This record gives sequence, structure tokens and C-alpha cells, in this order.
Amino acid sequence: MARWAPDTRERLRAAALELFAERGFDATTVPDIVERAGLTRRTFFRHFSDKREVFFGDDEIPALAASTVAAAPADAAPFAIAWAGFHRLAADRFEPRRAQMQAARRFIASEPALRERDLQKQADLRDALRDGYLARGVDVFTARVTAGVAVELLQIALERWLADETGAALTEHLAAVRAGMSDALADA
Amino acid sequence: MARWAPDTRERLRAAALELFAERGFDATTVPDIVERAGLTRRTFFRHFSDKREVFFGDDEIPALAASTVAAAPADAAPFAIAWAGFHRLAADRFEPRRAQMQAARRFIASEPALRERDLQKQADLRDALRDGYLARGVDVFTARVTAGVAVELLQIALERWLADETGAALTEHLAAVRAGMSDALADA
Repeated sequence: MARWAPDTRERLRAAALELFAERGFDATTVPDIVERAGLTRRTFFRHFSDKREVFFGDDEIPALAASTVAAAPADAAPFAIAWAGFHRLAADRFEPRRAQMQAARRFIASEPALRERDLQKQADLRDALRDGYLARGVDVFTARVTAGVAVELLQIALERWLADETGAALTEHLAAVRAGMSDALADA
Repeated sequence: MARWAPDTRERLRAAALELFAERGFDATTVPDIVERAGLTRRTFFRHFSDKREVFFGDDEIPALAASTVAAAPADAAPFAIAWAGFHRLAADRFEPRRAQMQAARRFIASEPALRERDLQKQADLRDALRDGYLARGVDVFTARVTAGVAVELLQIALERWLADETGAALTEHLAAVRAGMSDALADA
């Protein structure tokens, strides 16, 4: 009953993804998940509002984006702030969780309601980034365009990285997608 | 009972948006809408699966994107195909319907379920574009990146155009957003 453990959220997520893989999403209940994780129902609901939320590890990411943007040096260019933030996220959050994110992706792809929630999460991140820029005094146009381009870039890079069997780092995919987007816009 | 009229869909949509504005979305029923439009319930359901779909005039747009990509000259660059398609859509579909699209936008913004469906429609267009590129033999990376950048560009340009009180054309917003996205990616 290690409710104090710093990795409680990750333990719940790992137990849930195991059970979803074994029994399917619908046949797995929250009591099943907490039993597997050796935790309580109450602990589960402190971390996730429902069992779908298990797939979305990154509720904290929009808040993180907002604080990262707020903390950036005054002269930092808007896109550069997002770019640096994505590299920190890659190292701290994404790379250590690749296998788990791959499992979550498969479930998300398989259910329309999860795909919709996933799209909403991306939109939430984009809005948090845009609002962070606006709070720094970035103009409305640049804030919206930069947030849009940055979040689409991150999304494509994550998809590519999770599907990549060669073991290339997420940062390599970020660089490739950034170059690919520039080329597309230049009609190259 | 002009069920044969080419503008049936637009008449239903105009009637629905009027009623939503007068009575609110929840208080408006499909029978109210067809009465106002002078059409039948059956006709309504030939055009829309439910009253929410009225907000999304563009179910045909993913199919249109697929056929446009398929019909493009063999040597056309992937992004250039989307860009030409957006300019045709601007002239044929969006500019003539600006006031109606503004009304629909306000409703969409006001209800989470409509916002989610709107995100799904954008994702559908992106996937249709990507699949169209793949069918032309474009590589997977370029197909995904080009579709992602093109649909985000269109989305931002539409938002800007619908909010713009100066009367600037959608094509001007498309050009401005394209330049803004390039600048962001170049850290400019």
C-alpha cells in the first residue's frame, strides 16, 4: 500500500496497461487495476478521473508548457521556447516511457472515443502554449501560429518515434519533422 | 417541399442556425428545423445524421481532398496540391458562406462535444490528404508531414479569417499563415 511512493501514478498505469493487454479494455475494471498494483481505489481516483485517462499520461504537460513558457528568458523566440521544452520532455518523460507509450498508442488507435480524447489533449497543449505566449506579450497571430506548428511537429515526431523500429531517438525525429515541415511549406 | 432543390442542404443548415440563435441549440428540434425550412424530417436525415452535424458543413471535404489529390498532375509537389485545393475551396465553399461559418464557429466554441467533433473532422481531413498522397506514391514521412502542416495551416487561416473584421480574403490569411509557419520553424 505504498501510497506515498513517487511512482504511484506509473505503477497504476503499468498495471492497467498489462490488464488491458491481457483481458481487453472493457473487461478490465478499476478494482482489477488497483488489485494488480497493490493500491487502493481511492488512490486510483486521485490520479485518474476514469480508466480511459490511464492512456493519457500527460495531463500535466499543458501545465508544464505554460510554466516553461513563463520561465523562458525575455528575449527567447517563441518557437525556440517550445523547441527547448520538447527536448526536455523527450529526455525526462518520453524516452523513459517508450514501451508504455507504444502500448497506449495501440489502444488509442483502436477506439474512436480514445482517439477523440487524444485529439482534445493535443488541442489543450496547443492552447496552453498559445496562452503562455500571449502572457509574454507575443502577438495573437504569432502565438497561434507558433503553438499550432509546434504541437503538430511534436505529434508527428512522437508518432514516428513510437513506430520506429531502428531505435532512433525522439530528438532525431523532432529534427527530421521540423526540416520536413519547412520543406513542405517551401514547396520543396 | 423542394426536395429536389440543389440547395436543400444549405436551406436546412440556414434554418437550423437561425433557430439555434433564436432558441438555443438544446431547445431546437429536428421537426422545428424542417418546419422552418419547409422540408421533411426524412430529407433532414438524408443530409445530416443528427442536429450537431449541421455545424459541420464539410463532411464532403475529406472526399473532395482525396479526389483532388488523385486528379493532380503527376509531377505536382505534395504541398502544392493541397495549396491549390485550399484556394479552390476558399473561392467555391468558404467565401460564399462566411456569415454562416461564423455562426457555426460560435456554437462550436461554446460546447465541448462540438469542439471534440470539430477536432475529429480536422483529423479526418488530414488523414484523407495523407492517404491521397500515399496513393500517389508519396513516401510515408512526406505524406504525414505535408498533410499535418497543410491542415494546421488551413485551420489557423480559417480561424483568423472568420475573426477578421477588416474583410480580408481567406486567401490573404492562407498566405500570411504559411509565411508565419515558415518563420516559426526558422526561429525567425
